[in-house]
Amino acid sequence: MSQDAGGDATTEGDLRNTGMSLKHDREWDYELDRIIEEIEEKDAKKVGLQFPEGLKRRGPAVADDLRELAPDDVTFMLSGQPCYGACDLDTFLMRRTDVFVHFGHSPMKNSEKIIYVPLFSNVDVFPMMEEALEELPEDDVGLVTTAQHMNRFPEMKEWLQEQGYEVHTRRGDDRLTHEGQVLGCNYASADIDADQVLYVGGGKFHPLGLAMEHPDKKVVIADPVNNVVTVADTEKFMKQRYGAVHRAMDAEKWGVIFCTKIGQGRWETAERIVDENENAYLITMDEVTPDRLRNFDMDAFVNTGCPRITTDDGPQFHKPMLTPGEYEIAIGNKPLDELSFDTFHGTW
Amino acid sequence: MSQDAGGDATTEGDLRNTGMSLKHDREWDYELDRIIEEIEEKDAKKVGLQFPEGLKRRGPAVADDLRELAPDDVTFMLSGQPCYGACDLDTFLMRRTDVFVHFGHSPMKNSEKIIYVPLFSNVDVFPMMEEALEELPEDDVGLVTTAQHMNRFPEMKEWLQEQGYEVHTRRGDDRLTHEGQVLGCNYASADIDADQVLYVGGGKFHPLGLAMEHPDKKVVIADPVNNVVTVADTEKFMKQRYGAVHRAMDAEKWGVIFCTKIGQGRWETAERIVDENENAYLITMDEVTPDRLRNFDMDAFVNTGCPRITTDDGPQFHKPMLTPGEYEIAIGNKPLDELSFDTFHGTW
Repeated sequence: MSQDAGGDATTEGDLRNTGMSLKHDREWDYELDRIIEEIEEKDAKKVGLQFPEGLKRRGPAVADDLRELAPDDVTFMLSGQPCYGACDLDTFLMRRTDVFVHFGHSPMKNSEKIIYVPLFSNVDVFPMMEEALEELPEDDVGLVTTAQHMNRFPEMKEWLQEQGYEVHTRRGDDRLTHEGQVLGCNYASADIDADQVLYVGGGKFHPLGLAMEHPDKKVVIADPVNNVVTVADTEKFMKQRYGAVHRAMDAEKWGVIFCTKIGQGRWETAERIVDENENAYLITMDEVTPDRLRNFDMDAFVNTGCPRITTDDGPQFHKPMLTPGEYEIAIGNKPLDELSFDTFHGTW
Repeated sequence: MSQDAGGDATTEGDLRNTGMSLKHDREWDYELDRIIEEIEEKDAKKVGLQFPEGLKRRGPAVADDLRELAPDDVTFMLSGQPCYGACDLDTFLMRRTDVFVHFGHSPMKNSEKIIYVPLFSNVDVFPMMEEALEELPEDDVGLVTTAQHMNRFPEMKEWLQEQGYEVHTRRGDDRLTHEGQVLGCNYASADIDADQVLYVGGGKFHPLGLAMEHPDKKVVIADPVNNVVTVADTEKFMKQRYGAVHRAMDAEKWGVIFCTKIGQGRWETAERIVDENENAYLITMDEVTPDRLRNFDMDAFVNTGCPRITTDDGPQFHKPMLTPGEYEIAIGNKPLDELSFDTFHGTW
């Protein structure tokens, strides 16, 4: 899926490590003062706190700190629901609290009630960026990163300029908060006028999507979390996807998943598939897991929810799991060579 | 946990088999005509179908049958959320459909939008009832059963009367639809004037709860699903529960679970615990699973949601998991001998 490019890099990065559970010791800035201010301003009595999976463990200590600062009559509630992004708000908790704090992701959509507290990585990105230079021979370079490293983005850009590059960046679409930011399902910030793009961040899922979405560009990965520089290689990924599509070609019964998470619903896509295929069944759920789908006696599934589930978790499902685009290929509506990465646009 | 009473019964019933996944071949009556009538009357365009876990597999075929009978422009949606009772409605699907059909449980609360379709077992209950007679030496007997066998309840009662018993039955409280019905969390229908109660149904969880809730009564189990007659024995269960309570006595940090499922929320109970214990943290979630709780670094948990999760699934959690009553014992508010089964009252 990737090739080692850096001379000193002896360990391959974990493909699944998207930077959520990092190996570094760190202090996060939970922006307690901003939260307390909001609680006081709104005279809030119930406050919901939601953390992504890798940081849930920190929740009780953050609640402790907030309880010390907040008025006595405020009840803090921790979301125990799985959370994988700003697309994945605990709407139950949000509705039932006066202030709802979402930690670790940048805003996908602003709302009066939600406080987004981004948690920025304090890892030094420059050693790996330096190592990445030898994979970036041209004068123009695109620069993208994830929410965790967004705070260093201006510095990264400046540093690349100092190395003599013309650095191309853009904000992308509504789903993205910041210039240069990518999500696992959105790479619009890399629609820039350069043939090489430097991705700074942990893991390989994001740069892989980026390389799939922009097959004409060379995507160089400077991973400061796993200390490795690589070049995104879509070949293995493509083989996996073609394998899934081929296995689904004989499918008679299709399960069409409509994900009920606030930022992951593509209703029109799901509805169109079931309207046009009488052997397709619409299945709604929030968490899309192998266990839940095993209950349905289908030959294959199309997931209109989070693309990462389809591609990254795909092999764990008991039947082939395709993206909407792959489904069109499997049923013969589109040629095989139109296989592409599934991306998400818009908010909710 | 139980002792074999029937002479011919050579196999012990599976403790976890509560009758949801039965061994018998059967035809269910899905009441398609009633559903179609409602769809037409309401001119419904979106129809949600929810099945309990053991019957989810039947969903697509039921959807097929309904599609043949319904107008062409109706879209059927299958709930992929786990479902363990009428307390556990897929509220997302319910809100987003014009007609919502809940299969396999009896109504906990009626609503304009919900059609409850009970699915009755066609297993013959009388051979095991006959075998149970030798464990019922007194003249008076209480009779209870689960939703699956409710359709035979009048026959069962009549049959017992023919055997010379005075049969005591009652409806219980609001949470129960039918006279003689028990839930895993409610045994109010057994508050009757007899020292022995006959439970007709699959599994041992219900009769165990019944015996715990009514320790003065002998609870005889006629299990027509596993073909076995036993007498409920709470000793092993009590030992397990005391074990969990003891292990939790040293706990400093408590996770207090508030379940967000529509019929499983006990907000006042949860709030009282966190208000009175500064080392208690309120955690909200729908599915209460070992995986989700592993994310929280607590010493013990109190589950204010479904009692079955606490007691039946309890040993699977990484830390002791107590009912609200057991929590009071563990923190020293109540004496050890007040340990009792956790029951639920009211609807939602």
